[in-house]
Amino acid sequence: MTKTIAYVLYPGLTALDLVGPLTVTAALGPEFETVVVARDLEPIDSDAALRLAATTTFADLTDPYCVVVPGGTIGTLAACADEELLDWLRAVSATAEVMASVCTGSLILGAAGLLEGRPATTHWGFRDLLPRFGAVPSTERWVDDGDVVTAAGVSAGIDMALHLARRFAGEDAARAAQLVIEYDPEPPLGPIDWEAADLPSYQPIMREVVRTALADHPDLLARLTG
Amino acid sequence: MTKTIAYVLYPGLTALDLVGPLTVTAALGPEFETVVVARDLEPIDSDAALRLAATTTFADLTDPYCVVVPGGTIGTLAACADEELLDWLRAVSATAEVMASVCTGSLILGAAGLLEGRPATTHWGFRDLLPRFGAVPSTERWVDDGDVVTAAGVSAGIDMALHLARRFAGEDAARAAQLVIEYDPEPPLGPIDWEAADLPSYQPIMREVVRTALADHPDLLARLTG
Repeated sequence: MTKTIAYVLYPGLTALDLVGPLTVTAALGPEFETVVVARDLEPIDSDAALRLAATTTFADLTDPYCVVVPGGTIGTLAACADEELLDWLRAVSATAEVMASVCTGSLILGAAGLLEGRPATTHWGFRDLLPRFGAVPSTERWVDDGDVVTAAGVSAGIDMALHLARRFAGEDAARAAQLVIEYDPEPPLGPIDWEAADLPSYQPIMREVVRTALADHPDLLARLTG
Repeated sequence: MTKTIAYVLYPGLTALDLVGPLTVTAALGPEFETVVVARDLEPIDSDAALRLAATTTFADLTDPYCVVVPGGTIGTLAACADEELLDWLRAVSATAEVMASVCTGSLILGAAGLLEGRPATTHWGFRDLLPRFGAVPSTERWVDDGDVVTAAGVSAGIDMALHLARRFAGEDAARAAQLVIEYDPEPPLGPIDWEAADLPSYQPIMREVVRTALADHPDLLARLTG
């Protein structure tokens, strides 16, 4: 039976969080089917100048093998209060092999109650919010906790997807997917210099994202900022 | 004046070729505007289970600062025979600071006549086609030849975009974009082992892509395979 790997699409997401891992798992063999799932098939705005449209709906997809929830900023925090999305995630998590996230997508998994007591990661700018959902924050690039797998910010979804490809389909299949997408990174300025990066300067921006996104959801806002 | 960085959308492209660099340049400051340009604003199918829609049209965008042409397989070869697209690329190249490509997007630049005598790169599986357009093939991850900048396959677009970010906006801006997308790669199986990869086994697949895509364009097919 074909195993469905489903990428969740919602308004305002960061497109690379979805497209990076999707391109990896789409290169796996016919045992796996990659789909994009949303409330409906209408194009939605991402957080950049690009609109994306799903190929199936929450109503039509009841038994995914793996679900990947991408992140973003305001749109993602708003999605943490989207009960229809959270209900669907809770429902499919009962039978899915893996519930996964990229970047702040882990906050959506947390809002669905799927990270209680679990090690997890997210974008560095929002890591302090994970404990608000009962998760144990990690600074790893991805965290495999069995049926919950989370990735760090944005581009980390590609690394996580190659890990999932290896876990689901074996090392040869993962290597083939890596070759097809020619993932042989050469960041022109080298890896991130975490010591030199002024992370605290971003904190006011991140806090404002949370406040703006959840202005109409005082309970969740209090849970995250109180 | 705002400088527009335009990503070209066409049917069958590989979404990551577009979304990777777009996410980088979208993180630059307000001096730059990132748009996605296509014939019209209707969603089009990518080569995976995801539909994408543009934010502007060829008719409405006449003076981009930088154009990025993503690649793919059958859809990209077919686009090499799309005279409307090629005419637009030739027209805007007259004033653009940079005409760029990711993966086999360089074949589209080549079909537009923009690679004559220029060093360029593409996806490893299609590198032998570059000389058919007068280009000098390179195995670098990206090649900056002034007003033409090309990247290797799929994920190489992220590295190229960080290079362009540094060139256009300076090193600090490029570092900030890299931090925002948390591009600190950790491929779980390490970098690609090019010695171990069985590249020749992919050649029949690549040739079939060209034949299938250009079945209705015998002149271009002969140019690429004769």
